[in-house]
Amino acid sequence: MNLQIKPRTFKGTRDFLPTELLNRKNLINKLQYVFELYGFAPLETPAMEFVEVLTGKYGDEGDKLIYKLAYKGGNELALRYDLTVPLSRVVAMNPDLIKPFKRYQIQPVWRADSPQLKRGRFREFYQCDMDIIGESSIAADAEIIAIMNNSMKELGFSKYVTKVNSRKVLYGMIGYSGVKKGGEAEVSRALDKLDKIGTEGVEKELANLDLKKKQIDILFDLILTEGNFEDKVEKIKPIAESNELFKKGLEEITDVFGILKSMKIPDETVEWNFALARGLDYYTGLIFETVLPDYPQFGSLAGGGRYDELIGLYLGRDVPATGASIGIDRIYSTIEQIFGFPERGTVTEVLVCVFSKDELGYSLTRASALREAGIKTEVSLGGGKLKKQFGYADKKKIPLVCIEGDNERNSGIVKIKHLGIGKEFEFNVLEAPRKIRELLAETK
Amino acid sequence: MNLQIKPRTFKGTRDFLPTELLNRKNLINKLQYVFELYGFAPLETPAMEFVEVLTGKYGDEGDKLIYKLAYKGGNELALRYDLTVPLSRVVAMNPDLIKPFKRYQIQPVWRADSPQLKRGRFREFYQCDMDIIGESSIAADAEIIAIMNNSMKELGFSKYVTKVNSRKVLYGMIGYSGVKKGGEAEVSRALDKLDKIGTEGVEKELANLDLKKKQIDILFDLILTEGNFEDKVEKIKPIAESNELFKKGLEEITDVFGILKSMKIPDETVEWNFALARGLDYYTGLIFETVLPDYPQFGSLAGGGRYDELIGLYLGRDVPATGASIGIDRIYSTIEQIFGFPERGTVTEVLVCVFSKDELGYSLTRASALREAGIKTEVSLGGGKLKKQFGYADKKKIPLVCIEGDNERNSGIVKIKHLGIGKEFEFNVLEAPRKIRELLAETK
Repeated sequence: MNLQIKPRTFKGTRDFLPTELLNRKNLINKLQYVFELYGFAPLETPAMEFVEVLTGKYGDEGDKLIYKLAYKGGNELALRYDLTVPLSRVVAMNPDLIKPFKRYQIQPVWRADSPQLKRGRFREFYQCDMDIIGESSIAADAEIIAIMNNSMKELGFSKYVTKVNSRKVLYGMIGYSGVKKGGEAEVSRALDKLDKIGTEGVEKELANLDLKKKQIDILFDLILTEGNFEDKVEKIKPIAESNELFKKGLEEITDVFGILKSMKIPDETVEWNFALARGLDYYTGLIFETVLPDYPQFGSLAGGGRYDELIGLYLGRDVPATGASIGIDRIYSTIEQIFGFPERGTVTEVLVCVFSKDELGYSLTRASALREAGIKTEVSLGGGKLKKQFGYADKKKIPLVCIEGDNERNSGIVKIKHLGIGKEFEFNVLEAPRKIRELLAETK
Repeated sequence: MNLQIKPRTFKGTRDFLPTELLNRKNLINKLQYVFELYGFAPLETPAMEFVEVLTGKYGDEGDKLIYKLAYKGGNELALRYDLTVPLSRVVAMNPDLIKPFKRYQIQPVWRADSPQLKRGRFREFYQCDMDIIGESSIAADAEIIAIMNNSMKELGFSKYVTKVNSRKVLYGMIGYSGVKKGGEAEVSRALDKLDKIGTEGVEKELANLDLKKKQIDILFDLILTEGNFEDKVEKIKPIAESNELFKKGLEEITDVFGILKSMKIPDETVEWNFALARGLDYYTGLIFETVLPDYPQFGSLAGGGRYDELIGLYLGRDVPATGASIGIDRIYSTIEQIFGFPERGTVTEVLVCVFSKDELGYSLTRASALREAGIKTEVSLGGGKLKKQFGYADKKKIPLVCIEGDNERNSGIVKIKHLGIGKEFEFNVLEAPRKIRELLAETK
């Protein structure tokens, strides 16, 4: 234990110091408020899952990014990769859960990815999910979309759009272009890149997947359809007729937009987007993704969809499920860049100064009285020069400083200096807690 | 993906379903409230640390319980074992942190232990720590003790005691009995078991450590000293004189009890306990442990101490530090056994029923209006028979059900049934949100 150990963290993981964490907690509290407004309750699952529970759900690329433990106990263990698979396992293990089961979950996940810190890609990051389990009605999907939008509003964004599409419609379109069954996932992943790499880029990718010029033209003609919701329905309706799944997808899309109207979700905040595909393998129906149209560079801030077959992998029978994940890290850096965050690294409201070592007791008694009244109070435990104590309050942006020497004590007075506005106040000892609370409220 | 996967969790890890998690969150919020009242700010660190950062701090037994990752990237990684070592690393990596740095941290830790679920020993469990870094004054230790006690009060316990001792005093006593330097830690660990295995048990352990009968007698004469704080000081004073560290320890103990009086901490809630040793290797000064005297079977609910040399292992120079950890799992099961917890697995306040598929839209609009007013509202998204919808509200203990058929709609009325008190109310549409809030407040 005598050699010095280099203090360092693993690249792609982060310490959250108070200034950032207070702002993150504030953001998370707002999301939690919205989830609870819709009757969602919290769930937490272990960091460790058996490897077999995780693999085969995220696609081949995803499986490679699962962190395994070295633990030798017969069963291979790995770290949580997302929150949807653990939820599905919980539902399968607890068949008596009252349905619909509406849960939110805010926990870190781990991915053995090469981190790109500037682009916000980490090895450890929080996910924030809400899901409705056991409800096949399309109204459940509408509720998820409503929560995505209300979350954006609660976070202070004024302009946001949730793009909606259906795997059934998308696969129907791809099938209509002549792609064989089984090839839809690959083609849809290429189409999903339209916003990022443009039509030319997507054309190339489709050609690489052996699509003929004519097939690509058919797909583009569909996917680039301009106009409002009704125009899009008109365009799709005739070609959907011949395919049951395609037709069902169109019905669902129509229903979900109707329901969103009843929920008073403004028209301009939801959009049917033909190119939306979403990456994960397990989606089976509607899919959604929320973006800020004025800031396309931030990408999608939330995304999700219906996954009616995932729980069946564990339970042996399917249970309908729909939900979405809100990207806390991405939202944090988006808010930071658009609005900025307060830079207060403390919650302390009053610093009680200590005049001399012998007077520490008085200051501690004063602090106890303020805390009793619910005022967040620190004491200069180490004493020292008053100037140094004021400097501490200043650096930590503690708004009020309490000064109490012999004079004040003898005349039953509490002296408060407001560092922000540079003013002094004198309060009667008995009234001090109430007066200090008022002062804090006025100058917030 | 066709074979069914057995849904299961790793023994010693837990899913927290909503009913338990809502109660746990409530408990954690109370602790957080107390920490913030004393000016502590939150910190979070990564789940993964480099192995070399963790080992050599917890004792040989501890090192064996560290979970390592299988990740092959040149650097060995392991899961967080406690919150004190990561804090020390953070302080060493951020020399510009304003001191004193007062932080709390509430995150899971992992230990490759054999779990004993009934005795509350898990492989994954939350720790809840608060520490003061960069303050050598004994007032900082007093503040930690005050927070431990105030936490117990805030959690609803009426009778609790924080035992206080000093490693300096304890090692001084052991030295006085004739144990050679370097042997103090072993002997102190045996003494620490006094409450559990009694004097006879401890005598045996000391004899196994090669202490002679006479040495054991000297130790027991000191440690079993009866009486109040002053009596204990009288007993120790003469023998402490000849040993600088012992004398310093006695001074610190005397100071800390004086400071606690200024902080208005009631006498009967703190006790100088000669046998208190605490297990961890890194403590250097005062140590503390909170128990419920009426429930000795629950063991200690919180514990901590001063560790002035730990940060130096990373930084190359020592930084004074003191703090404590509150055992959330143990407190949870203690509260559960003494008081019990509410069994509501939901936060929902109103369930809006759906009369028929065609009327879903009306119900959704009503729900949106209630949410707009901050009322936590669910809708029976799947519709179905009213009896089934009522049954759902009943099972989930949702207090209010909103019923709105053609009649109510045409006359501008919202009908509410309070399931708890079995009464119906009719409110004017415009007044409904306010009236519902009043009803919820009255019947809470």
